[in-house]
Amino acid sequence: MDPIHIAVVGLGKIARDRHLPAIAGNATFSLAATVSPHDTGLDGIPHFASLDELLEQGPAIDAVSLCTPPQVRYDLAAQALKRGVHVFLEKPPGATLSEVVALRDRADKVGVSLFAAWHSRFAAGVAPARTWLAERTIEKVSIVWREDVRVWHPGQAWIWEPGGLGVFDPGINALSILTHILPRPVFLTNATLSIPANRAAPIAADMHFRDTAGAEIHMDLDWRQTGPQSWDIVVETDAGTLKLSSGGAVLALPSGTEHNEDLEYPGLYARFANLIRGGRSDVDIDPLRLVADAFLRGRRVSVEPFID
Amino acid sequence: MDPIHIAVVGLGKIARDRHLPAIAGNATFSLAATVSPHDTGLDGIPHFASLDELLEQGPAIDAVSLCTPPQVRYDLAAQALKRGVHVFLEKPPGATLSEVVALRDRADKVGVSLFAAWHSRFAAGVAPARTWLAERTIEKVSIVWREDVRVWHPGQAWIWEPGGLGVFDPGINALSILTHILPRPVFLTNATLSIPANRAAPIAADMHFRDTAGAEIHMDLDWRQTGPQSWDIVVETDAGTLKLSSGGAVLALPSGTEHNEDLEYPGLYARFANLIRGGRSDVDIDPLRLVADAFLRGRRVSVEPFID
Repeated sequence: MDPIHIAVVGLGKIARDRHLPAIAGNATFSLAATVSPHDTGLDGIPHFASLDELLEQGPAIDAVSLCTPPQVRYDLAAQALKRGVHVFLEKPPGATLSEVVALRDRADKVGVSLFAAWHSRFAAGVAPARTWLAERTIEKVSIVWREDVRVWHPGQAWIWEPGGLGVFDPGINALSILTHILPRPVFLTNATLSIPANRAAPIAADMHFRDTAGAEIHMDLDWRQTGPQSWDIVVETDAGTLKLSSGGAVLALPSGTEHNEDLEYPGLYARFANLIRGGRSDVDIDPLRLVADAFLRGRRVSVEPFID
Repeated sequence: MDPIHIAVVGLGKIARDRHLPAIAGNATFSLAATVSPHDTGLDGIPHFASLDELLEQGPAIDAVSLCTPPQVRYDLAAQALKRGVHVFLEKPPGATLSEVVALRDRADKVGVSLFAAWHSRFAAGVAPARTWLAERTIEKVSIVWREDVRVWHPGQAWIWEPGGLGVFDPGINALSILTHILPRPVFLTNATLSIPANRAAPIAADMHFRDTAGAEIHMDLDWRQTGPQSWDIVVETDAGTLKLSSGGAVLALPSGTEHNEDLEYPGLYARFANLIRGGRSDVDIDPLRLVADAFLRGRRVSVEPFID
């Protein structure tokens, strides 16, 4: 079978750290081109300043991975879908819910695969956590997601702009795991968002959710953590406590702890290949809906300015 | 056929001005009880301080209309659905999207009717506008929704709290019409929200949307309008201009203008009865999703304090 000829659009940190290695490591894909107005591309791979230019003048492509900031992603995705090109959306899949729903409708109509990728769902501990929780009664969930923004998002101005999500850029990873492993739907009951006086997006958030059986879920999300970083989800159940740590890579159950290697992006590209080969899409907006709910329902407090 | 025994929960302005007259005017319904901790109810109708009390001690009911502020609506609706009682949700259907989605799942599971009511969709001009637009190419849409908050929401503190939506409380009516009459999905591209320095919710918003064919939609939403009030939607098409005014009651087409009487709440209760008799639900979250998108994506500006 011919490989899937894929272009990577946006060559920032996430594209170089994660997407390009995952594509290089998967024989189903062949990297056909890169696109970025800010970059000269990779040795030996055709490079274009815009998706337009690639589609007009470049080699034929079957698929694109959109690794740009979310604020510009809708137009790129719509342009690709119009040409029958399959689309991989980095998280978050868009700057608004309604644009993602519009893209999903369009992909269904033209019969092209659209994949809203949630990389943390492919962390090694997540699938077994979901299986283990499926049969349990959930009593209480605690999420602590605390990291140092200066380490993980150095100089990324877009992330502080409207549509850039601020601390929800990492926080949505926790929500993508939460909505995947819990057996019942969850909804937000209240939230407090801490917004630096000189920025548009939150640097921290304190959130309360419930599931439809009444279990309380608390989330402590903070970008001001120096020293040890925390990406932990603890679920108390009628059969003991489950703990996912290191962003989902390490799973501790009452029976013992599993450490696994990081397979997130290889897992995403394997999934994307399956969707394309099977003529299907996978566009789950639940994590972004919970973030939108936090912005809609949350109380805002102003905190000290953040200087990069 | 026995009438549907209905209780009205929350006896504020909207319940007294709209719901009670519409129920009284529809022979399919019989008002069985009212619920409010702040009120003594109506002559001759059993009254309860809480829904709990009604469900434990009151007359049997088939349905409830929830006319409380949105922040407390989820628990009331969940409680009713659990007892097999059909639920009418005043707009907005909840304080978050995720709680409405959770209620919809639950209603489907227990086989009870849930109705997220959008009263403006039942304004007389809306159905013919939708029919007329179905065959047109939409070129441009302009929405002007300007009213005086002191006239329409006197002393309603909850409306300024997180989850109370502020100026989107009326604005969501325009969005419920827009999403109903346009033939294609729309999504938000950017928004500016004006928040009084002493409040949590916006007093005005300037918003830009597009539909999936690229038509530009502008919305000017303002609560500071004194004098004449505006609730107008103008749609320019390849076959001329459509104008809905007075909140959807008056429809002007190139062929002439129709003025009609207000049938919004009678229309809603006729629809609710049909849903119950047919064993179906109707829970469209599109209008609330666009509002959540405005909170998620919008730029906030601080404006002068609002004193009631």
